[in-house]
Amino acid sequence: MPPTRRQARLSQPGEFQLIQSLPRRFSTQGFRPIVGNGDDAAVLPSSSSQHTVISTDLLIEDIHFTRKTATFYDIGYKAAAANLSDIAAMGATPTAIFVAIALPPSFIEEDWHEFYRGLAIPCQPYKVQLLGGDTSSSPTSLFIAITIMGQVAPGHILTRHGARKGDLIYVSGTLGDSAAGLAYLKTYQHPPRILSLPKSRQYLVQRHFHPTPRIPLGQLLASRPFASAALDLSDGLSGDLRHLCEHSQVGALIYNARIPMSEQIKNYAKRIHTTPLHWALHGGEDYELLFTLSPKWQHELEKMAKKRRIPITQIGVIQPKQFGIRIEQSDRTRNDFPAQSYEHFSP
Amino acid sequence: MPPTRRQARLSQPGEFQLIQSLPRRFSTQGFRPIVGNGDDAAVLPSSSSQHTVISTDLLIEDIHFTRKTATFYDIGYKAAAANLSDIAAMGATPTAIFVAIALPPSFIEEDWHEFYRGLAIPCQPYKVQLLGGDTSSSPTSLFIAITIMGQVAPGHILTRHGARKGDLIYVSGTLGDSAAGLAYLKTYQHPPRILSLPKSRQYLVQRHFHPTPRIPLGQLLASRPFASAALDLSDGLSGDLRHLCEHSQVGALIYNARIPMSEQIKNYAKRIHTTPLHWALHGGEDYELLFTLSPKWQHELEKMAKKRRIPITQIGVIQPKQFGIRIEQSDRTRNDFPAQSYEHFSP
Repeated sequence: MPPTRRQARLSQPGEFQLIQSLPRRFSTQGFRPIVGNGDDAAVLPSSSSQHTVISTDLLIEDIHFTRKTATFYDIGYKAAAANLSDIAAMGATPTAIFVAIALPPSFIEEDWHEFYRGLAIPCQPYKVQLLGGDTSSSPTSLFIAITIMGQVAPGHILTRHGARKGDLIYVSGTLGDSAAGLAYLKTYQHPPRILSLPKSRQYLVQRHFHPTPRIPLGQLLASRPFASAALDLSDGLSGDLRHLCEHSQVGALIYNARIPMSEQIKNYAKRIHTTPLHWALHGGEDYELLFTLSPKWQHELEKMAKKRRIPITQIGVIQPKQFGIRIEQSDRTRNDFPAQSYEHFSP
Repeated sequence: MPPTRRQARLSQPGEFQLIQSLPRRFSTQGFRPIVGNGDDAAVLPSSSSQHTVISTDLLIEDIHFTRKTATFYDIGYKAAAANLSDIAAMGATPTAIFVAIALPPSFIEEDWHEFYRGLAIPCQPYKVQLLGGDTSSSPTSLFIAITIMGQVAPGHILTRHGARKGDLIYVSGTLGDSAAGLAYLKTYQHPPRILSLPKSRQYLVQRHFHPTPRIPLGQLLASRPFASAALDLSDGLSGDLRHLCEHSQVGALIYNARIPMSEQIKNYAKRIHTTPLHWALHGGEDYELLFTLSPKWQHELEKMAKKRRIPITQIGVIQPKQFGIRIEQSDRTRNDFPAQSYEHFSP
């Protein structure tokens, strides 16, 4: 649950500040979480060999998605993938999911089945069980809240606060595809049938609706002291890098030229006479992992990732806090790298 | 998460049937829950001395509550109490809460604080921690989804499926107060200030907005082989007794004359020339516990409940399944006792 992901429109006051003010009202004694509020998921002690990881996410119609472009299948798929991604960011293995869904008056039984059909797809490779939930009617919008649980061995938990000066900054996969897919979808008056689209556009739209949670990479990063910090890219690189730096109390230098981008995003950007870089730097919902690593692990991790065919790219280096967060252009000039908030769906 | 509690308006098809059709899509292998979907909460193995209990609930504006009568404080209080009640029904001790809330455009920061202030009150006696959540804007209505966790020792879990022929049927507290409080509130054009109401009406309205989750009773019922089955009364006695009987594959005989009712509900019913019994039999959201007990435990449990000042009343006896669910009047005639669905809030 990255706090700012859902700040969409919740500007007065920021959620993060609000959340910070709450713990005083609630107990901090007795039951002891290992990682509390503020990371991708909370971590609770369960047995000596496994901890429980748990995270809750909201998905609201016309805030996070619109039924004008997304089918119930797409909505279910993405809801599961986004939640699994929070588990991946902790280095954990997902085990169970709980679904609360409020259905508007227009819904038909098939919609409900399509939602769960989509939800099940990203869960299947990890044998995630549906263990509970709640269904209600809703007066107007479709509303979904998902709680996901996972397990992780003590000492193998990835958090946002461990990055140190000199650590290398990595991302998985390619960035910006999801935002480019959304931009492309918005050019249509009516939602296109995905299969009717040209292959390279299909790819971008698929990346938008059916992201791949990076569970195997999370597990690899947590399998020995590999990653010093990690989170999943839901708000976009500029926003999420800021979260990581704030939690770890560090700065960062990113190399523009190293940002990994797909052929499909370059192709689409060229077609509409723009640069793909704004999507890659600021576009959200890629659900790739952003992580940091001590240089001494670089060789071993890259070798193991390659063997497992998990694409990872070093895009920068952690700096002292006073350095700030900056981006180096190809001509070696350096600029501030301000966070731009990503609007999941702007009606 | 009693499945039918939120069937309000979700009639085509019933949620329970829908939920039943889902597990095929999801894994039932690997990770092994002790109690799965369908009871008040799922139970997951965690350590050898403690299991984890987890439940998710939805609260939707103009379905489960209306801001015409409830303040944000009331909404938060009841949301926490209703969820704690699910934990009580499992015999567990609550530990942590996760809150997802979507706020309509009209909300102001104070509303948010009032919601959490109310939410914290029923959590405080049990040192429940707020461990995560998600806040979003909502295009129209206020949506709340709460996930609550608890702990229970293996072998001390209360479920809905253990009732046996001859077991005594009990309820805690008094029934119908919440529904009578709601009926009273509906007589006002504009929401009254609670403190301006006569004391006995205040009581009913408080029971509606600020129910008391029966955590100590749940713990007592689970402390030795006391209760054979238990659930919390959210849909009303007639509806929830049916759930218990269906899960346990038994019938039941209820004695009309034994239904515990408060002086306040009798007083109010008399004032408006009605009988309080329809509220007590069919009114929801009392969040008292309904449980069954082998007669051999009767004496010891009643003694221990009295010592702890927890009011409990035997209201009937479990029967074989073919007996059905029936209610005996004071003149000893017996009738079917059909479930009447409770509408939390009818706009």
